[in-house]
Amino acid sequence: MSKKERILTGDRPTGPLHLGHYVGSLKNRVSLQDEYEQFILIADIQALTDNYDNPQKIKDNILELMLGYLSVGINPEKSTIVIQSQVPELAELTVYLMNMITVAQLERNPTVKNEIRQKGYRENVPVGFFTYPISQAADILGFQANLVPVGEDQLPMIEQSREIARRFNSLYGQTFVEPKEMLSEVPRLCGIDGKEKMSKSLNNAINLNDSSDAVLEKVMKMYTDPTRVRATDPGHTENNPLFIYLNAFHNDKKEIEEFEGRYRLGKVGDIEVKKRLAEILNNFLEPIRQKKKEYEKNIPLVNSILKKGTEKGRGVVQQTMRLVRKAVKTDYFG
Amino acid sequence: MSKKERILTGDRPTGPLHLGHYVGSLKNRVSLQDEYEQFILIADIQALTDNYDNPQKIKDNILELMLGYLSVGINPEKSTIVIQSQVPELAELTVYLMNMITVAQLERNPTVKNEIRQKGYRENVPVGFFTYPISQAADILGFQANLVPVGEDQLPMIEQSREIARRFNSLYGQTFVEPKEMLSEVPRLCGIDGKEKMSKSLNNAINLNDSSDAVLEKVMKMYTDPTRVRATDPGHTENNPLFIYLNAFHNDKKEIEEFEGRYRLGKVGDIEVKKRLAEILNNFLEPIRQKKKEYEKNIPLVNSILKKGTEKGRGVVQQTMRLVRKAVKTDYFG
Repeated sequence: MSKKERILTGDRPTGPLHLGHYVGSLKNRVSLQDEYEQFILIADIQALTDNYDNPQKIKDNILELMLGYLSVGINPEKSTIVIQSQVPELAELTVYLMNMITVAQLERNPTVKNEIRQKGYRENVPVGFFTYPISQAADILGFQANLVPVGEDQLPMIEQSREIARRFNSLYGQTFVEPKEMLSEVPRLCGIDGKEKMSKSLNNAINLNDSSDAVLEKVMKMYTDPTRVRATDPGHTENNPLFIYLNAFHNDKKEIEEFEGRYRLGKVGDIEVKKRLAEILNNFLEPIRQKKKEYEKNIPLVNSILKKGTEKGRGVVQQTMRLVRKAVKTDYFG
Repeated sequence: MSKKERILTGDRPTGPLHLGHYVGSLKNRVSLQDEYEQFILIADIQALTDNYDNPQKIKDNILELMLGYLSVGINPEKSTIVIQSQVPELAELTVYLMNMITVAQLERNPTVKNEIRQKGYRENVPVGFFTYPISQAADILGFQANLVPVGEDQLPMIEQSREIARRFNSLYGQTFVEPKEMLSEVPRLCGIDGKEKMSKSLNNAINLNDSSDAVLEKVMKMYTDPTRVRATDPGHTENNPLFIYLNAFHNDKKEIEEFEGRYRLGKVGDIEVKKRLAEILNNFLEPIRQKKKEYEKNIPLVNSILKKGTEKGRGVVQQTMRLVRKAVKTDYFG
């Protein structure tokens, strides 16, 4: 009997889940949960590093995230969902790992460098945000994850976690699994404005819990082919959000091809394609909305799933911490 | 009935206690323990930030420190001795407090700046060492200490802890006591080489557990008045380690004055004063050595004192952490 490999993945509870999350990670998690032992971390402590002035938002979004997971098909019998803050051993591990990396190494991490620039922090970056790669390494190493699903842009984070694991193992003896990236070309869904990335902060997202009317409204406002003035003009389908979304959410490839052909010839207007796309998206979203509604009627059940998952996850990290304290010789009272 | 004010003090378990520790802090603690509720933290996690490559040294010195405390008269019925690593809530608190301070503010801390320079770390400073003022703030705030006995050079640390407390209280509501420094002109004992500070690393210390012969030997090698070539030359008593030590450890002020008078007139040789000083130091150290020997015969007792103190201390910090989690809204399951 071969043991399943362990995956750690997760999200920061900072806002509602949207179609971009679905395409980029949720869909993948639903299919990975059969083959792997999957832990999903709701990273509230990490979310606080740049939302420390709004803890209520983080708290509210924990339940929101959880409802989203369950609605899209994350099965709590197969995947373990854990709240980061409720595993304080991760903070303890973070403090130990802070000795395994220098300030200069942190500064070189291109992901963090980039984020600090984007957020306009300059030298006023809070220490918690500056050091969050160490907290992330603690998550990965604390769970002894073999695999971490990431996109290309997050490779430096995994590399840094691996370096920290190696340094610790070589100083104190074999303690941590060296994590590997599970690099899929993470499909990235563009926003309804055509911008590369769908994101709450860019205000270009279709949320998993948008109403049917809201979806229709957003799709009708969707950015399409700027070169096309009239419905009879020949249109471009490549890099056109309409067709990107159709390809992402419609199973009838024949219908898509037909639309594409007509669009290129100027034989179909944006409005017709948009109405059909809204219908398709709503067909996709309807069972998710329904499932969410059911779970919303039973919040104690949702919380008990979260509690059970967190307890199981905490158990794993506690086991790791027993090894860590032994290695660093802080198991003073045995 | 007025509540006693709470003091937090402590040491890094990195080496044996010496006379400098006694004069600078231990003596003070023995007298403070009656009037104040005193917690003494054995800061092993902090010690690891610049000794992470030698955890065995830190572990061994915990017991050593503890034996020293008990031998000089720290009374476990009055003072609570706590091992930092055994209160993991302090690490959890550290992680929360890291959001309350920026990298630039840490860099400005003159104490840390100075230490980084002294250790020759430059940009290769480990993150754990760079951020240790936050861990120290977590100790002070976690224990809700009103007062922290410090010397002038540590004022910036207390100021930073106070700033962190204020920032947290103003963001999340009153949670932490704002700590104040208990600034005594901390008497600093010079080394036997006459250098300003007695320190293990300068190899100029008389340790509390030095044998009687070792004390004699060290005193005989002591730096005195470099301008005095012969015993009949008039000597200087000010800034002369011989007389600094006599004044610190001898109660018979009349005898000291007599020695000083003769020394200034060139009527007593260094050797005579040194022999008498060694005798005085050994008289002072002998009961400490005896007490230590007794405790060494009963290590289980010593460990049980340490365990009991750590449990009590952990209880205090756990109570603080309940407030903190409530304030930051991470008390998810209540």
